[in-house]
This record gives sequence, C-alpha cells and structure tokens, in this order.
Amino acid sequence: MHFQPLLDDIAATLRPELGRGGQVASYIPALARVPAAQFGIALRTCDGEEAQAGDSGTPFSIQSISKLFSLALAMRELGDTLWERIGREPSGNPFNSLVQLEAEHGIPRNPFINAGALAVTDRLVSRCDAKARMLALLSSLCGEPVGFDAEVAASEAATGFRNVALANFMKSFGRIDNDVGPVLDAYFHDCAITMSCVQLARAAGFLCRDGAHPYTGEPVLNERQTRRVNALMLTCGTYDAAGEFAFRIGLPCKSGVGGGIVAVVPDRLTLCVWSPALEPSGNSLLGMKALELFAAKTGLSIF
Amino acid sequence: MHFQPLLDDIAATLRPELGRGGQVASYIPALARVPAAQFGIALRTCDGEEAQAGDSGTPFSIQSISKLFSLALAMRELGDTLWERIGREPSGNPFNSLVQLEAEHGIPRNPFINAGALAVTDRLVSRCDAKARMLALLSSLCGEPVGFDAEVAASEAATGFRNVALANFMKSFGRIDNDVGPVLDAYFHDCAITMSCVQLARAAGFLCRDGAHPYTGEPVLNERQTRRVNALMLTCGTYDAAGEFAFRIGLPCKSGVGGGIVAVVPDRLTLCVWSPALEPSGNSLLGMKALELFAAKTGLSIF
Amino acid sequence: MHFQPLLDDIAATLRPELGRGGQVASYIPALARVPAAQFGIALRTCDGEEAQAGDSGTPFSIQSISKLFSLALAMRELGDTLWERIGREPSGNPFNSLVQLEAEHGIPRNPFINAGALAVTDRLVSRCDAKARMLALLSSLCGEPVGFDAEVAASEAATGFRNVALANFMKSFGRIDNDVGPVLDAYFHDCAITMSCVQLARAAGFLCRDGAHPYTGEPVLNERQTRRVNALMLTCGTYDAAGEFAFRIGLPCKSGVGGGIVAVVPDRLTLCVWSPALEPSGNSLLGMKALELFAAKTGLSIF
Amino acid sequence: MHFQPLLDDIAATLRPELGRGGQVASYIPALARVPAAQFGIALRTCDGEEAQAGDSGTPFSIQSISKLFSLALAMRELGDTLWERIGREPSGNPFNSLVQLEAEHGIPRNPFINAGALAVTDRLVSRCDAKARMLALLSSLCGEPVGFDAEVAASEAATGFRNVALANFMKSFGRIDNDVGPVLDAYFHDCAITMSCVQLARAAGFLCRDGAHPYTGEPVLNERQTRRVNALMLTCGTYDAAGEFAFRIGLPCKSGVGGGIVAVVPDRLTLCVWSPALEPSGNSLLGMKALELFAAKTGLSIF
Repeated sequence: MHFQPLLDDIAATLRPELGRGGQVASYIPALARVPAAQFGIALRTCDGEEAQAGDSGTPFSIQSISKLFSLALAMRELGDTLWERIGREPSGNPFNSLVQLEAEHGIPRNPFINAGALAVTDRLVSRCDAKARMLALLSSLCGEPVGFDAEVAASEAATGFRNVALANFMKSFGRIDNDVGPVLDAYFHDCAITMSCVQLARAAGFLCRDGAHPYTGEPVLNERQTRRVNALMLTCGTYDAAGEFAFRIGLPCKSGVGGGIVAVVPDRLTLCVWSPALEPSGNSLLGMKALELFAAKTGLSIF
Repeated sequence: MHFQPLLDDIAATLRPELGRGGQVASYIPALARVPAAQFGIALRTCDGEEAQAGDSGTPFSIQSISKLFSLALAMRELGDTLWERIGREPSGNPFNSLVQLEAEHGIPRNPFINAGALAVTDRLVSRCDAKARMLALLSSLCGEPVGFDAEVAASEAATGFRNVALANFMKSFGRIDNDVGPVLDAYFHDCAITMSCVQLARAAGFLCRDGAHPYTGEPVLNERQTRRVNALMLTCGTYDAAGEFAFRIGLPCKSGVGGGIVAVVPDRLTLCVWSPALEPSGNSLLGMKALELFAAKTGLSIF
Repeated sequence: MHFQPLLDDIAATLRPELGRGGQVASYIPALARVPAAQFGIALRTCDGEEAQAGDSGTPFSIQSISKLFSLALAMRELGDTLWERIGREPSGNPFNSLVQLEAEHGIPRNPFINAGALAVTDRLVSRCDAKARMLALLSSLCGEPVGFDAEVAASEAATGFRNVALANFMKSFGRIDNDVGPVLDAYFHDCAITMSCVQLARAAGFLCRDGAHPYTGEPVLNERQTRRVNALMLTCGTYDAAGEFAFRIGLPCKSGVGGGIVAVVPDRLTLCVWSPALEPSGNSLLGMKALELFAAKTGLSIF
Repeated sequence: MHFQPLLDDIAATLRPELGRGGQVASYIPALARVPAAQFGIALRTCDGEEAQAGDSGTPFSIQSISKLFSLALAMRELGDTLWERIGREPSGNPFNSLVQLEAEHGIPRNPFINAGALAVTDRLVSRCDAKARMLALLSSLCGEPVGFDAEVAASEAATGFRNVALANFMKSFGRIDNDVGPVLDAYFHDCAITMSCVQLARAAGFLCRDGAHPYTGEPVLNERQTRRVNALMLTCGTYDAAGEFAFRIGLPCKSGVGGGIVAVVPDRLTLCVWSPALEPSGNSLLGMKALELFAAKTGLSIF
C-alpha cells in the first residue's frame, strides 16, 4: 500500500473543517495561543516507509502523549514490579479525578490517567534522572534532538494545582516514595516536551515492531511488554473516550491536550495526527476524524 | 496451523488444576451445584476447521455471554438508534452497580453491564418476541436447536432483585419503554440459555468473518458493526477485568458467570472455553488461563 | 405568649408572596394540580392552646411527613432492634439516591430518606397491618378520622419506579424481609395520607410533650425515644437542607413534597405550615419563610 | 443545680474504663505518645459558676476544636459573605474526603470538615495575621495566654499530605485566593494549639451566652450568628457521627482527634471533656460516654 496519496487525501478532505469546531486547550497561555487552524499527519511503517501531509513538521506540545514513553521507560526499568502501585483497568472517570483514587486507597487505575503517570514518574525518579532519561529516549527514537518548552513547563507548574493535589493525595496513602516536588517537576517537564507529527510517528515506531527500536532494531521493550502497552493504549489511552476510539477507529491510540494523537497498527505502522482544537473529551477533533478516515480507507483495524 | 494438538495440549496442561482455586457461582442453586472440576475448549476457524478438547460438548448456562447475541440482534434491528440509550465506554464499576447509572441519568455505560443489557432487551421487546428471536438466532448460528433452562430462568427471576432494581431505576429516568416485567422476563431467559463450548464457538463465528453467518454466509451484521462488537468485547466484555484481559490475553472476549468465555481472533477464528470456577472478577479462572496459553502459544493477539 | 396574633401576622406578611416562586410537585397529576397560592399555619402548645391562620384547615397530601409517624410506630414496636437495619446519620445525598445504599450494603443512612422509610415499613409489615395501624395512630393523635387519598396512592404506585428500585436494591442485600409488594403498598399509602395543618400540629403534639399523647397523656413514645426523634428531625428531616433548616430556623422539622412542614419546639409546642410551591430542595418555599419568621419573632430556637 | 458533685460522679464512674478501648490518634508522634488513661471534664455556666474533675487542667492538642474558633473569627470578619465559598450541610462523608469536593466543584460542605476549615482559613489569611489573631482570641476568651505546640505544628506540616491535597484541589477550582503555603501554615498551627478542659470550657462560653464574651460581655458574635454556630456544631461538629451525637447526647458539640470535645447547652453552660483514646469515628470514646452521662443525669438536651 502506498500511503502518501492517502495522507494527502485525508488532509485535503479535512482542510475545509480547519478552525471550525472544537476548543483549543486554554488552561495555560502557551497552549491557548496556538492557532486552531492547523492539521498534520505522518506515518512510518515497520519497513521504514514514511509519509506525511499538512503541518506534519510543526512542533507542538505533546502533553499526555509523553505518558506513553514514561510508561515504556518504567516498564523497562522496573519490569512487573511497576504494577504493584498502578492498575491496568479503564477508570470510567475523568483523567484528573480524585474520586476513584480515594476509593482505591491511592492506587491509580492505569498509567495513562494523571495519577497513574505521576506514580510512574515517582518510580522513575527513584531510579534515574527522569527528565534527562526521557529526552534521551525520545531523541534516540526519533533520530534527532528533542527538548522541553520551558514556558510550558513553568506554566504547568504554576497552575497545576490539581496535579499537586493528586501527588499529595497518593503520598498520603504512602504510594509516592519521593518528595512530591521532584516528581511533579519531572511530570510537568514531560508534558512540556515539544515534537512534530513526523517525530512522534518515528518515536512510537517500536510499538508496531514488537518493541524493536525503529532505527537500531535493539529492543526498547520485549514483545510481550509491547503488546501490553498497545492493549493499555486501546483500553485507557484516550481519556474518557477509550470506548469511542475502539468503536469508531479500532486502533490503540494515545492522545494529548496539545491536540496530538499517536496510533499503532501492530506489525504495520505507527501514525501521528495533530490538530489543536479539542472535543469535549479532550481529544483532538480533527485528529479523531483523520484516524477514522484512515481506518475506513485502509481497512486497517485490530478488530 | 493445526489447532487440535494445541487444544489437547492446553487441556492436558490445565488438567492438574481442575477443581483447585476459584469459586463456582452460588447465587442460584442450579449454578451452585455444577461440579467445579470441568474444563472444555473448542474453536472454529473462518474456513470451517474445528477443534475441541475436554468437556467441550457439555452444555452449560451461558449467562452474560447472551449479552453478545442480544446486542447483535438489537444492532441489526435498530441500527445506530440503539446508541441513543446506551453508551460505549468501560464503566470502571462492578457490572451490577447503580452508582454510575444515577450520575448518568439512567443511561448505562455499555451494553455488557447488566443495566446495558436490560436496555438492549427493552429495545428488542418493543420490536419482536425477544425470547423466541434469541433462540432462533442462536439455533441458526450453531446449526442445532438451542433452549432455555427453565429452572435457571425461574431462579434468576426469583432472586434477581438487583436486576429488578436496575430496570426500575432506568424506568424512573424514562429510559425503559416497556413494562419492566416482560423486559426482565426476556433478560432472565437469555441468561438461562444452555449451550456447549462447541456450540458457542460456532455461534460466535460471524464475529471473525466480518459479520457473515458461519454456515450460510449471509450477513448477521455488516462489517463495520462486527468490528464494533469486537471493540466492545475488548473494552467492556469481561466485567471489571477488561484491562486485565487486554493486557494478558489481547483478544476480544465475552464472559459469563456460568464459567464460559467466548474469544475472537478477527479474520481467523472464534474460540470458547469453559470451566465453572470463577476468579473474584467473575471470570472463569481456568478459562482465563487457557486463553492466555492459547495466545502465548499461537502468537495470535490483536496487539 | 399569645400565638394567634403572631400567626395572623405571619400569614399577612406572606400573603403578597402567594403563588410567586417555587414549583408545585409535579411527578403525579394529583399533586401537580394543587393550586400553588395557598398557605396555612397552625400550632398547638403543650398546654393545649391552639392557634391557626390561612388555609390551616385545608387537607393536603402529607407525603414524607408520614415518615415521622411510621418511625414512631416502629420505635414503639421494635425498640432498639429497629436500628440494626437503619442508620441515624445525615446522608449528604438526595433523598432518593441509591449511591450511598450501594456503598453501605443496603443499610439506609436514616429513617427519613426514602430507603430508610421503606426499611421502617418492612419492619412494620412483619408485625402488623401497617396501613391500618398508621391510620389508627394518626386518627387517635389528632382526635378525628384520617384517611388515604386513593388516587394519590394509585399514582404513587404507578409511577414510583425509583422507590421500587430502592426496595428491590435493599432486598438484594437481604435488608428487606417481606416481599417488596406489600412493603411498597404500605409505603405508597402512607405517602398518600391527607391531613390539614391543624390536624398535623395536633398529631405531632407528643413530640413536644416527652412522648405523651396530646389528648390522653398516655405514652406514645418514652422521653428518651421522643428526644431521639426530635434529634433525627433536626439532622435528617428536611431532605438535603437539614443544615440550612438548623442554620436558619433552628427547630426540628419534617417536611413533605406536598408542601407541609411539621416543626417542634421541645417542651413548648408543635407547629405545622403548608404551602404547595417548593424550593429546589423539595421543601415548601413559603413554609420555610413562615418558620423563619416564627423563630425570629418568638426567639424560640433550640440553639 | 450544683455541678461539682455531678462532674465528680461522672469522673468516678468512668475511672474503671480509663485506658480500656479506643485508640489514641497515631498519625503524628506527638499525639501517639499521649498516655491513653487520662480523662478530664470542666464546665462553666452563663453565670460564671465553674466545676471540673479529673485531668481538667492538663493541656492537650485541641486539633479540630480550633475549627470552632476560626469559624467564629471568620463570621465576625466577613459576615454572610463567608458562605459564598462554604456550605452548611452535613457531608455524609469522612472529614478529609475529596469525593464530595470534586462533585461540588471545590466548595466544601461545611466549615468543620478539613476542606471547609481550610477555606475559612484562606478567608482569614486574606484579612489578617490569622495565626496571631487566633491566639489573641483564645487567650482573651479563656483569660490566660494560649499557644501553639511547635512540634505538633511541624509534624502536621510534615505529614499532612491529605490537607495539602485538599488545599490544592480547592485552589484548582479557584476557591482558595492565597497561595496554599500560608493557608496550610495557619491551618496546621491552629490544629496544634494546646489548651486544657478548663480553658476550653471558658473559651467556648460565648456560645451559651448569645455571643457575649465570657468575661467582658462584649459581643464575640451576635445572637443570630451564635445560634448558627451552635446549629452547625450539632449537624456537622463531630465528623461522621453527628447523627449519633444528636441521637445519644442531644447537644451541639465540636470534637478533635486530640480527644477533646466541647459541648454547649444554650443559655446554660459550656462543657469540655477530654480523653485521648478515640472511637473509630475519630471522637473521644470516654468523652462521648461522659457527655451521654451528663445529658442523662441533668436532663439537659436541646430536644
């Protein structure tokens, strides 16, 4: 299958909808001022074929997509002991809810809600320089340097009271080992990483190759771990709309409020779409439409 | 791939564990007295190859596996209007919880929790003789007559106070059109359908064939609907353990407290395992182990 | 203190507000068609002095005020064993919520939420002809025959799906001994009792006299039980507005969606106000204002 | 009534139970090492009569009893605007729960749960040197200097992750105006105030005197405000056991996990009991028994 014409077609189909509908995330100024009328799409196959269309080279704030990579780092570092403090079930509640955390004694439902990612980050902070390791992993995976947006990181820290609450709440149950300060600092920096569609499609490449690094072929995760990450993406990767994604798109996805969504077609390719305006669920409106078109036109679905 | 040796191997591997661990469902006498030390497995490929091992021909109470077939009936009857009263997201709460239903004004999270199946049944009761239609569908799909266990149906009705509560609660929000009596009657009878592993592997066959009837090839559902059923099975099909199933097994599954689990490998085969002793999550203990072995030995996983 | 001029004054003060603001209960036709522009007030002191103003003789549906009298009956019948299945704490949730009931395994928080009153009624149904005993008690207490409004009782039964759900839900936890049918029948009839302000002020008279019957002086409850009923009224008697009542009015009260409110000044008097239009909390809008005026003008408050 | 013999009698009755049953609060070392086998009781009437028995002069950590005085300060400072950010209803949930706060958008149910007291403290921090004002009020009310226990304050700050979470959570809803740091500092210091039964019985004296200072007679609060504080104590003052207190004791009370309980008999007297071992509800076990004996023997109850 030649993907370049397909991506061109999807970008052309969605062009009339650019800037119509949805809301750009507004909780910090650096996100709020991103122009809504942008759309990018990029993919990379297991064989190294690449295709891209639209604003596919424009860097954006990856936000919660970083949770995918911090999870991979922690699975590699900690193996199955990671799961002693983090569940693997869909939460059925908003991504930043404290309700379930209270009922379940500070153990977050899964690593893709904020509480879960904070717990993952705490594990990493105990073992390494979590911020440096994250950038090193992403830079290696996409073959070029990746960095934080310092303004975004500072804004996240200045306004992230809910995340501060989540971290302290878990700490009150004895589920966070480190001081909450460094854990939050690493978490806020992860959210502030800046990448483009092309970079993310490359960086996620190990997820369609049984864990093998997209360039070196060395294992990032083993095969079993890789399948499990994909399973988690499908059941928990898109805030409170995981069922809707599975139903309409049928691919493991991880989204962020910066408007990016990474999708995996196991054994075939990884894909990244980006458009800043969000649905009420917090997922990119045009990003979801693009993925739905992609699945419909290619017949690529895991179901 | 020849599956018969594989199923024999799985059955042999699990034989020493028969009757050890887990609890047979005990809420009605007819289920409580089923001997725990039984295990069956059967599959049927898209090409019509069949294999089976253990107690694969023993009839058992399919219980919530019936929700898969009532959903298919309702999707065929109602198309997308079905989704006006039923969500498609994981619930994050026990299968018979009323909490979420209260917060969400009587609209159940998905068709596989009890409230959702009651809402599906209400839609069917409005359109047809729901009990007769269900038996006709299942008999056609597995190529031989299928019936209700009258004792189980009567026990479900006599002790199903929680389901009566759920139906009346949804009715109080105006989400049930019919009198609750006939809806509950059809629902309790569906739960009381008796089938074997072989019959269920055949009956679910349309789910791995883009919706085509396993014998006649006629569409039971269209391709898009079929994928969506598989997606719902993966995200919502196994009570509060959907994440665990996706993580460990990686296949769309639907389970019942009678100890059966139906699994789908899209475009390849359908599979049914059965063993009455349950894990705390309400899913068959050995059934889960068998599926995990099957996925590990075949490498068949959607992820 | 001479109360007649005071009640006349309160009625005159509120007259300009009659029919303005609030909503008459509309869930059954018989309540929905009650004209909003009515107001009555009546009191009876421990010494037998009576005063009344406005529509104080007009019969209305006492609705949840009946929970006060069914509780008194059950406390007399069962003593402290009553509290094995019913709590005594404010619920913090709407009167007909199922959420807390699920978390607390079918034990209702207090006897004044619907679930609690159903549990009280179940206890009575086990011991006596609950409907007849209720009418006998009320007729004796107010010195003249009291009856049910058959149309209201039938409407409650025909539309009371939430109450049917509550009863079946508690039954599913083993907290209801009888079939739910007779329990609901008695409960719906209690809600459909018709009385006037004057009758209710008399009937509640034992609550300001350490439990002594307002006419015969015989004990309806003992002193300790009577204080406890007053305590429950204050903490739980006015739906989700118990704190607001304590804060603004400072007297034990029990309200109903028919627009009536009974209040107790311990050792002094009992009072009943009635006006059909309700606040969002389900309490009579003008009834609350009248009680607030009464408390302010007399200085009678328990605090 | 002469109260000295009565208090002696209560202390003698409870002496055999000293050190039996209940658990001393253990979340910080300074509380955990308080010997359980202590009991004190003291009262002061409106007329200035005083009585005391047992360890009535021993200073203890007043903990949540401080919420009574910070509320009084804030009511005096802010009048009715205080209630824009704090409710007045019982919570029906544990004192440090975040669940309700999430559902109700960061507005705490009442000023006596931790979240409510933090909101009260935020209001005070905006207006004055909250810590100094608190000590000044208490010192004035009990006629001698009152201070903080620095070790307790430091421990509260070092381990109070749940309170840090609550403050940040409210801040995320825009319900806290100040930085959370100074608000938490003032709150932790308030909890760490040390007083004896005698001092607290005196300091609470304005609550039985329509708001008048126990020594100077000047208004601490006006009459209406004072009644409202008493009403809040009754409905919300004793953690999740307000109904139980109203039912068994029948007086407005405010308790703390240091083992103290302040009770008010309006227009008669204020009372303080102290014994460190707590019931599961977080209220002093012997303190509750002492208050129940006091109410039973004197007949003093507001109901």
